[in-house]
Amino acid sequence: MLLHLSSWPEIEGQLAKSRAVVVPIGSNEQHGPTGLLGTDWLCPEIIAHEAERLDPSLLVAPTFNIGMAQHHLAFPGTISLRPSTFMAAISDWVSSLTRHGFERIYFLNGHGGNVSTIEATFAEIYADWSFAEERCPFMLKLVNWWNLPGVEKLALELYPTGHGMHATPSEIAVTQAAYPDRIKTAALEPKIAPTGPIRDALDYRARFPDGRIGSDPLQASPEGGRKLIDASAQALLQDVAAFTAEVQPGL
Amino acid sequence: MLLHLSSWPEIEGQLAKSRAVVVPIGSNEQHGPTGLLGTDWLCPEIIAHEAERLDPSLLVAPTFNIGMAQHHLAFPGTISLRPSTFMAAISDWVSSLTRHGFERIYFLNGHGGNVSTIEATFAEIYADWSFAEERCPFMLKLVNWWNLPGVEKLALELYPTGHGMHATPSEIAVTQAAYPDRIKTAALEPKIAPTGPIRDALDYRARFPDGRIGSDPLQASPEGGRKLIDASAQALLQDVAAFTAEVQPGL
Amino acid sequence: MLLHLSSWPEIEGQLAKSRAVVVPIGSNEQHGPTGLLGTDWLCPEIIAHEAERLDPSLLVAPTFNIGMAQHHLAFPGTISLRPSTFMAAISDWVSSLTRHGFERIYFLNGHGGNVSTIEATFAEIYADWSFAEERCPFMLKLVNWWNLPGVEKLALELYPTGHGMHATPSEIAVTQAAYPDRIKTAALEPKIAPTGPIRDALDYRARFPDGRIGSDPLQASPEGGRKLIDASAQALLQDVAAFTAEVQPGL
Amino acid sequence: MLLHLSSWPEIEGQLAKSRAVVVPIGSNEQHGPTGLLGTDWLCPEIIAHEAERLDPSLLVAPTFNIGMAQHHLAFPGTISLRPSTFMAAISDWVSSLTRHGFERIYFLNGHGGNVSTIEATFAEIYADWSFAEERCPFMLKLVNWWNLPGVEKLALELYPTGHGMHATPSEIAVTQAAYPDRIKTAALEPKIAPTGPIRDALDYRARFPDGRIGSDPLQASPEGGRKLIDASAQALLQDVAAFTAEVQPGL
Amino acid sequence: MLLHLSSWPEIEGQLAKSRAVVVPIGSNEQHGPTGLLGTDWLCPEIIAHEAERLDPSLLVAPTFNIGMAQHHLAFPGTISLRPSTFMAAISDWVSSLTRHGFERIYFLNGHGGNVSTIEATFAEIYADWSFAEERCPFMLKLVNWWNLPGVEKLALELYPTGHGMHATPSEIAVTQAAYPDRIKTAALEPKIAPTGPIRDALDYRARFPDGRIGSDPLQASPEGGRKLIDASAQALLQDVAAFTAEVQPGL
Amino acid sequence: MLLHLSSWPEIEGQLAKSRAVVVPIGSNEQHGPTGLLGTDWLCPEIIAHEAERLDPSLLVAPTFNIGMAQHHLAFPGTISLRPSTFMAAISDWVSSLTRHGFERIYFLNGHGGNVSTIEATFAEIYADWSFAEERCPFMLKLVNWWNLPGVEKLALELYPTGHGMHATPSEIAVTQAAYPDRIKTAALEPKIAPTGPIRDALDYRARFPDGRIGSDPLQASPEGGRKLIDASAQALLQDVAAFTAEVQPGL
Repeated sequence: MLLHLSSWPEIEGQLAKSRAVVVPIGSNEQHGPTGLLGTDWLCPEIIAHEAERLDPSLLVAPTFNIGMAQHHLAFPGTISLRPSTFMAAISDWVSSLTRHGFERIYFLNGHGGNVSTIEATFAEIYADWSFAEERCPFMLKLVNWWNLPGVEKLALELYPTGHGMHATPSEIAVTQAAYPDRIKTAALEPKIAPTGPIRDALDYRARFPDGRIGSDPLQASPEGGRKLIDASAQALLQDVAAFTAEVQPGL
Repeated sequence: MLLHLSSWPEIEGQLAKSRAVVVPIGSNEQHGPTGLLGTDWLCPEIIAHEAERLDPSLLVAPTFNIGMAQHHLAFPGTISLRPSTFMAAISDWVSSLTRHGFERIYFLNGHGGNVSTIEATFAEIYADWSFAEERCPFMLKLVNWWNLPGVEKLALELYPTGHGMHATPSEIAVTQAAYPDRIKTAALEPKIAPTGPIRDALDYRARFPDGRIGSDPLQASPEGGRKLIDASAQALLQDVAAFTAEVQPGL
Repeated sequence: MLLHLSSWPEIEGQLAKSRAVVVPIGSNEQHGPTGLLGTDWLCPEIIAHEAERLDPSLLVAPTFNIGMAQHHLAFPGTISLRPSTFMAAISDWVSSLTRHGFERIYFLNGHGGNVSTIEATFAEIYADWSFAEERCPFMLKLVNWWNLPGVEKLALELYPTGHGMHATPSEIAVTQAAYPDRIKTAALEPKIAPTGPIRDALDYRARFPDGRIGSDPLQASPEGGRKLIDASAQALLQDVAAFTAEVQPGL
Repeated sequence: MLLHLSSWPEIEGQLAKSRAVVVPIGSNEQHGPTGLLGTDWLCPEIIAHEAERLDPSLLVAPTFNIGMAQHHLAFPGTISLRPSTFMAAISDWVSSLTRHGFERIYFLNGHGGNVSTIEATFAEIYADWSFAEERCPFMLKLVNWWNLPGVEKLALELYPTGHGMHATPSEIAVTQAAYPDRIKTAALEPKIAPTGPIRDALDYRARFPDGRIGSDPLQASPEGGRKLIDASAQALLQDVAAFTAEVQPGL
Repeated sequence: MLLHLSSWPEIEGQLAKSRAVVVPIGSNEQHGPTGLLGTDWLCPEIIAHEAERLDPSLLVAPTFNIGMAQHHLAFPGTISLRPSTFMAAISDWVSSLTRHGFERIYFLNGHGGNVSTIEATFAEIYADWSFAEERCPFMLKLVNWWNLPGVEKLALELYPTGHGMHATPSEIAVTQAAYPDRIKTAALEPKIAPTGPIRDALDYRARFPDGRIGSDPLQASPEGGRKLIDASAQALLQDVAAFTAEVQPGL
Repeated sequence: MLLHLSSWPEIEGQLAKSRAVVVPIGSNEQHGPTGLLGTDWLCPEIIAHEAERLDPSLLVAPTFNIGMAQHHLAFPGTISLRPSTFMAAISDWVSSLTRHGFERIYFLNGHGGNVSTIEATFAEIYADWSFAEERCPFMLKLVNWWNLPGVEKLALELYPTGHGMHATPSEIAVTQAAYPDRIKTAALEPKIAPTGPIRDALDYRARFPDGRIGSDPLQASPEGGRKLIDASAQALLQDVAAFTAEVQPGL
């Protein structure tokens, strides 16, 4: 069930059956010369929608498509929130969803750079309950799609060398499977991009001139992407089911 | 050109040709018993993407899909930002886009409830330049898709009675044309919904029990939606061209 | 009853009779070569105080004299709040007044540039109740004095040409009637000022070199101002009475 | 010169002669059974306007009429900003005035409860320059009207017993001189109000049931008020002149 | 009892006996050529820990070691919070402590520049209760260590001339007594530093080139410091006892 | 060199030799029945001070002693900042230190719960430079003391079973070595504490009734602590040296 293509009575009906919702969350940022700017929000969207296709009882929220990508701002097309803005926006999403009775908010994340800020936001949200000495009536969970059970293993089997950390063949393959008419090619030099620390945008561009970190994305193919989507969607269904079944102690 | 399906070198190339970008912006909120929760962000997305199909030189950003919908929160599925959060997020989008050199940021809006906050955000952004006594190097524009030249006239020709203000047959028709497999039906009573002021969420639900304001959305049809999309997309192209050509005095 | 010239026991007594209060709100900003910098807060103050003179049972709060005028900052004497500051301040006024039991807060506004931010503030205030799933126990209303029933019609009768949008003969006439010893004169060229969009302060000054937009304020006279004050004060009394009598559904 | 009754060209002319401006600042809060709610903003306004009458070359800004009065909120009619809001608003006033070239911003304060927050605001404003390693091009000064040279001595001569700290005969006398038709009377018991610490609003009302602290305001008279106004206005002119003449070291 | 060297069950036990806690609070900022950068947080820490040594039933929290010192930022080693940050941090400390049941939070302060911001913070905290019309269940108190009964008198007896306002012989003596191996010496010229107003950091450095204000800190000695510590610690115990015994009216 | 026990001229001299500074950062929170509330800020302080004793050319800032510990708030003595407050405070520390010319700010962290928020803060700080298209002139680094090279290996050698995640024998041993007179004992049941997810404070207390997670802290000894301190201090010196020597590309 895709929330944005449903009516409110349909969501009301869904809430009678399940209190869980999946929020695809990512970032819109450069992904090297051949990757789509939308890669990091398209991947969790593609996977979550595939999971919903497999099991229509899974509720998927609209995609949170802009995240924390300040370090990519020296490449045109990147759109980033400041961490503080990102925190406020996630909080309002959570307040909206929990207001309706959702008790398991599962963020399926597509961008490593989002992780710290999302975790800090969870703490900010929980802190309201902790300072008030009240039990928080809902649970928040963050999972990167590549950390879903079995997925990283598959990715490294498909791309044993040059997988890297940014503009990886895995994520690009996922978008190629979903948008085969948008496959791009380019000469990449060096074949495998350098690695290093991440700081501000100009530092990033000086270290990683074409945007990639440690990766050789030319290995990506729609076929590889299809395998990753299938594995991820299956794993997502199981992980959400486990999260839904989780019991809060003492409640 | 859809920004999120492009690579950064493609956007770099686009910037050499045009400094304008269209941002579809809306809200995810109840639209009565038959309307999609995503209606208000789907409509500007549908129209902007159609315009881009007609003229691929038009650059369209990802859709800003969650807006200011606090008054709809008593209906399941609504997701809202607080005005202050919305302002921070829009500001960061603008900062990102103008950092790359975009000078005309055109927000194509799908939700009347967004207007005040977006206008206040524009003032907040301009204020930084005004207090600093510096000339703002970019222009911001907000247009509701139904206010594009000729569109409201067409809407009222299609639906002369019961157009209303929320969950209108126009907006629902646009989504029907784009998502024909998601057309929903319901018995609506009264046929034309009541009207009244908008305040907090429970006040809203007491006044407008099924979510509609002043509308009879059962009149919507994919055919009507198609006409509205065509007219809107054409008008958008012309309006963006005029905005792009606008000259700042004294610069 | 002017709140600031009353004692707290007098306000306590007033609250036993009425839960409504009028807040004159405006801006301190340039009004062309002949207009007072205080025009936009003086006008609603003058009108509200006149209404209180006619009917002393009307309670009028102190005047909120600084609003959102970032676009006027290139003209000396303008004082502006940022929209975010303005929102915080209005919220605290509302929290103070509703804490005492006021349930109808009527903002009589004198500055078009305030409207978006005040409306966004109302949404920010209501959002607290909407997210908490509680009914907001008070109502907020914003009315520009020139939109009081009958006033705009009178203004255009008095000044059928060159009324314009900023430094209008109407608003200047109102201040002339109240402050006849402060009437200023100047040679204005062109007679009717240009019109155009409003953006940052330096853009504004480049477009509207003497500060006026679309107006010929030299038409203003104390006599015209007197008529506008009388009509506005009468209309205000009726509008506040209607607002006071308004019933919240389901309460 | 009253800024709000001037035009922008007049302020432009004034700036060519002096870079100083006086901002009357106070609070709208209960002042016991006989004091006006506006006392704390009316007093500095009355004194500053009197000084301007004596010397029209003195520029007086509009009155900042709502301050930090959270402790008075249990008495109807009190309107308070939170300290954080107050800080933001003062900052925007200062940014506006210094943007025009004012270099000496003199706040004439009428409310003891404002002092800490205003001083903290000055530090917040200066901190921007201090962190940036730049010299702040303007100076801020805060003076309570009763601390103007000679004024406190006069107040204690007029009211040697029962002057107290809140709803003092001095401040009430000043308003009586300016608004003789608003003089109120009441039986006060005890004659001299108790004293004690100031905390939250309900604590305040429990300690000081009629709102006064340590004072016997029934001693106030318009004649006493006239003397205080005269002394304060003269002292203000001298103090502003000294502030205007003050030289920043090394500039 | 030092909170940070206790376990949570020990604090639980302490709460059964007393609801008071002392928070040493200060600043890390230049203290002239011979003063330690930590002087202003070391002094209240030294005194509070000495008091706890004398009476182990006194609970002392960790030291809040960074305060509001923007004016000292032109001297290396100064670390300052902005007033707004300082307010947020103090609020969170108070929320944490009162959440556990502490009802008397006593801030022993070592930095004059902190006073306004701490007082403003108290008002910000109390305001939440005042706007909500609820009684605040705890009391906050701020005392500068040199204002503890008898301490200033002792300081001026020890250092009758050249005590000054910043880098005073008193505070430096206190640190000398506690850290005798860190006593520093320097030639100071002039012997007694100048005085003047405090504004931004570069203004400060221009007025007070070596950092001192009005003081001759070379008079400091560990012996003098010992006397000040003894007197302060004794006075602190009595003042905390009185604060603990204070009764809220009507509770 | 301990910054807080130095004078500003000494720091000025230090800056001529090195642009690096170590900031011990932690949290004040429950550490089970036998751990000190200060454990998480004491550990990095102890280690950094030991490193400074070994090599006095290392500059150590005051300890940032309160971090993000909302989940521990159901245990008395815990003091926590909200993530947003923590971010503001860290930013001000960084602004202060970099204002003086420090270019390598090394945070030695003692609390796992701080990591996300500190990383998010680094991104918030870098974002200012990234949006402004300027190169950030300094580098920030976060290292948990147990992640210093070789330390975790040593910890698991010392405590191969029951090391756990909170109130570990390692951290308690470090404090025992430094504060041998504060060693506490208690009967712990079960011997090894349970593990599980971390959410709000009451959820935490329900899952981990005595505060420990996965650990058996009774294994701690001062001797083990001494080994950990020695290894950590040595590793810290090397890691700071490497960080100091790191070169920014293209600068």
